[in-house]
Amino acid sequence: MGIKITGIGSFIPDNVESNEDFYKHEFLNSDGTVIHYPNEVIVEKFKDITGIVERRYADNDLNSSDLGYLAAEKAIADANIDPETLDYIIVAHNFGDVKYNTIQSDILPCLASRIKYRLKIKNPKCVAYDILFGCPGWIEGVIQAQAFIKAGMAKRCLVIGTETLSRVVDKHDRDSMIYSDGAGASIIEETTDDSGILAHETASFTYDEAYYLFFGNSNNPNLDPDTKYIKMHGRKIYEFALKNVAEAMKTCLDNSGIGINEVKKILIHQANEKMDEAIIKRFYKLYKMEAPENIMPMSIHKLGNSSVATVPTLLDLIVKNDLENHQINKGDIIILASVGAGMHINAITYRY
Amino acid sequence: MGIKITGIGSFIPDNVESNEDFYKHEFLNSDGTVIHYPNEVIVEKFKDITGIVERRYADNDLNSSDLGYLAAEKAIADANIDPETLDYIIVAHNFGDVKYNTIQSDILPCLASRIKYRLKIKNPKCVAYDILFGCPGWIEGVIQAQAFIKAGMAKRCLVIGTETLSRVVDKHDRDSMIYSDGAGASIIEETTDDSGILAHETASFTYDEAYYLFFGNSNNPNLDPDTKYIKMHGRKIYEFALKNVAEAMKTCLDNSGIGINEVKKILIHQANEKMDEAIIKRFYKLYKMEAPENIMPMSIHKLGNSSVATVPTLLDLIVKNDLENHQINKGDIIILASVGAGMHINAITYRY
Repeated sequence: MGIKITGIGSFIPDNVESNEDFYKHEFLNSDGTVIHYPNEVIVEKFKDITGIVERRYADNDLNSSDLGYLAAEKAIADANIDPETLDYIIVAHNFGDVKYNTIQSDILPCLASRIKYRLKIKNPKCVAYDILFGCPGWIEGVIQAQAFIKAGMAKRCLVIGTETLSRVVDKHDRDSMIYSDGAGASIIEETTDDSGILAHETASFTYDEAYYLFFGNSNNPNLDPDTKYIKMHGRKIYEFALKNVAEAMKTCLDNSGIGINEVKKILIHQANEKMDEAIIKRFYKLYKMEAPENIMPMSIHKLGNSSVATVPTLLDLIVKNDLENHQINKGDIIILASVGAGMHINAITYRY
Repeated sequence: MGIKITGIGSFIPDNVESNEDFYKHEFLNSDGTVIHYPNEVIVEKFKDITGIVERRYADNDLNSSDLGYLAAEKAIADANIDPETLDYIIVAHNFGDVKYNTIQSDILPCLASRIKYRLKIKNPKCVAYDILFGCPGWIEGVIQAQAFIKAGMAKRCLVIGTETLSRVVDKHDRDSMIYSDGAGASIIEETTDDSGILAHETASFTYDEAYYLFFGNSNNPNLDPDTKYIKMHGRKIYEFALKNVAEAMKTCLDNSGIGINEVKKILIHQANEKMDEAIIKRFYKLYKMEAPENIMPMSIHKLGNSSVATVPTLLDLIVKNDLENHQINKGDIIILASVGAGMHINAITYRY
């Protein structure tokens, strides 16, 4: 029995927010002090490290559940299934629906209920729930779908990752340039062939790391201290991810019984290009190898970090031939991996 | 193989908010018009229908994750396990950490990460995630733990339900008197005896019902329209629950192969005493029987509706002999059932 992705879709908002759009921001250090560089220099340095040139923001009248619904429709069409046959709808996100220009997360009802409602699914046996698991939420949703199928509780699941990070950024924080909006969705099913998920690995590091990403105050001390924004300890995350993501990927690959030389593509969560390159280098070093050219497809330059949406969107772009110089063919071994708030890490070794 | 609850604990806040404490509120209809009864009459009518005399509110300096941690400590002690041996921490809630006197939900990192951090668990293989599933979230977490155990992905899970509904109520809405704060936690493990979960049933009704419980404006039209509160269409929920909870319980019991006469206790989510009595009556009517005396333990009079915390807290009270006239003995068949925002319903048939 194989458990595989039989359909994939993504929703990439139309609105491009370019690096130049940040020239008008007043960036401050986390202690509120002024940064003594012109914004042009700050933005250029940011681009050099993260690789991000532009990112996407959702239309003001769309919420996270709308993006998720739009991606879900595409995944359902791609898999060519009747949505009434779904046993589960699993929606990963981190902030719920945050209406444009407001600060409250609206998660009542859960986003999975909202998306099921928009999909007009009548079948009450289709269980719709949300998971909060940082950026690795979509991969974790796939792992949970796999569990339900293995346990005999499901045959077909819709797993969605959707996020509007643009609604929770602190405009006075340089890190605000990282974040983006988007959604990715997939249909997960039992199949009779030998493709699909070969192994998975999940870890939650909380002892020292729980608050590396957190909801905190603006860098501007004059703003309301009761209004919180997405915040991160970037340096700590970099060092943490470098070591632990590479190791989780190795455990996952080794558990699959697949050799490192068979790996064709590694789709890793994209928050920082330099960090991702360092992780891949470290991963291959664990096998005493150099990272092959073109092993890691990147969408970060144009799409930024859309959290839970990043990996499924990247997969969707590649299999639909919308990402230059990258292809995944039937039988190819790929690794999906992610790291994010929690701090959570996960990976899947997958035969396409 | 059995999958059972090997430890249970709950945290009931000390602060009693009595019905009389609501005499000072300015209650309004949902259209903003004045209610032409004195508050004493409103409160008395409320008590007659719901059964609620008082409810508990968390200390101002405690958040939902703190309550969950305090309940988790008790469940771990009750099961007498080393928390480092946990494979999963699953936390059900609906609003995250809402600091007293603020309106933002803080769910970054997820509450499971916060609780794992407070428990000082080092083991990164202990996966910590949150689920959003309305009031049935704790039962659904137990069902997910069961799936992970059945799929060979876990042996021991901590499942927590925690909520501070007092932080999201509209003081101008009579329904605000329903809501309460609290947390319940349980350890779920594989065992070799024949006790534990015999069957489960879950359903998500969204086609017409998705927004029966929702995040909406205050009944006071002068308050900020961008600040939302927990809101419900009570009459619709009543009719919905009466029909569908009874049927879900029947499906669950019939799937377990257990006869109706063997059922010793039914622990049902408590939002409204009259509704729960009607559900139980309807459930037995499906078997052409009258509901037995004393089949349904109630905590609502003193504890109100603490959402995800209600069922595990009730179970904890009974097995620790803290609820008058109710006992559960080894071998007893019990049904756990819940209904809430989504609209989700679930049930478990369980041999204690």
